Amino acid sequence: KRAELEAYLHRHIPMSAAMRVRVIENGPQRVVLEAPLEPNLHHRATAFGGSVVTLAILAAWVQVHFRLQVEGRTVHTVIQKSTMDYDLPVRASFRATCARIDDPIWERFCRTLDRRGKGRVSVEALVEGDAGRVGHFRGQYVALTVDV
Amino acid sequence: KRAELEAYLHRHIPMSAAMRVRVIENGPQRVVLEAPLEPNLHHRATAFGGSVVTLAILAAWVQVHFRLQVEGRTVHTVIQKSTMDYDLPVRASFRATCARIDDPIWERFCRTLDRRGKGRVSVEALVEGDAGRVGHFRGQYVALTVDV
Repeated sequence: KRAELEAYLHRHIPMSAAMRVRVIENGPQRVVLEAPLEPNLHHRATAFGGSVVTLAILAAWVQVHFRLQVEGRTVHTVIQKSTMDYDLPVRASFRATCARIDDPIWERFCRTLDRRGKGRVSVEALVEGDAGRVGHFRGQYVALTVDV
Repeated sequence: KRAELEAYLHRHIPMSAAMRVRVIENGPQRVVLEAPLEPNLHHRATAFGGSVVTLAILAAWVQVHFRLQVEGRTVHTVIQKSTMDYDLPVRASFRATCARIDDPIWERFCRTLDRRGKGRVSVEALVEGDAGRVGHFRGQYVALTVDV
């Protein structure tokens, strides 16, 4: 299941392959993605801010999109807004963790999506390096029902 | 000068090479970077949100970092916060434009940097596709004086 998701991301989002994104966990409680430092460097020393926010964008997208899919919905899921706070430089591989969205928020999101064909949800993700938290991400995603 | 900056970015930031970032303009009034759709796709149709925010992060970084360098300062320039609003899907190559920072803001930033060895500045960038504006970026960058 992790290898399958990894192959899916690398195939459909070339940037995830260029970043060498790995799927560490893809379960009901959380999505954890990891990227090595080397392809994501800025200046031979620390991770590039673009790579850090991109890993978080991916983790949150996976969380929303595939939970909708597992629950039987065929949707497009697009990002509407992203905010990333960079707390510390990243000197090694880094991980983005997106925890399961709380049920009341998820259920409200799905009700709107099912009724109107469109729903919006806010998602958070934590980015960690080898010495703990390095950044925090908040994203807004919009899901659109696809006629099949 | 554009080719030189492009080579610099591709060499020091591998992600910019993977995205095939091109330098369209690198003058005193604005920095304009462009990326083709293909390496930045999400799902064969539109640009990946991670690529879009990354192009804006780069344009704003170039604006701040190289203006400091042109003015004779040797610094590290790092991102502290990024916010990206995605207004429309991107269906072709896309550009990020970061206009010259207003002089009063720039001068205040430089005074703090010169006095304390550290300064913070907010920067905006516009992202445009073939049919106009597709997103808006705001970033906070911190410059740190490097002893040489």
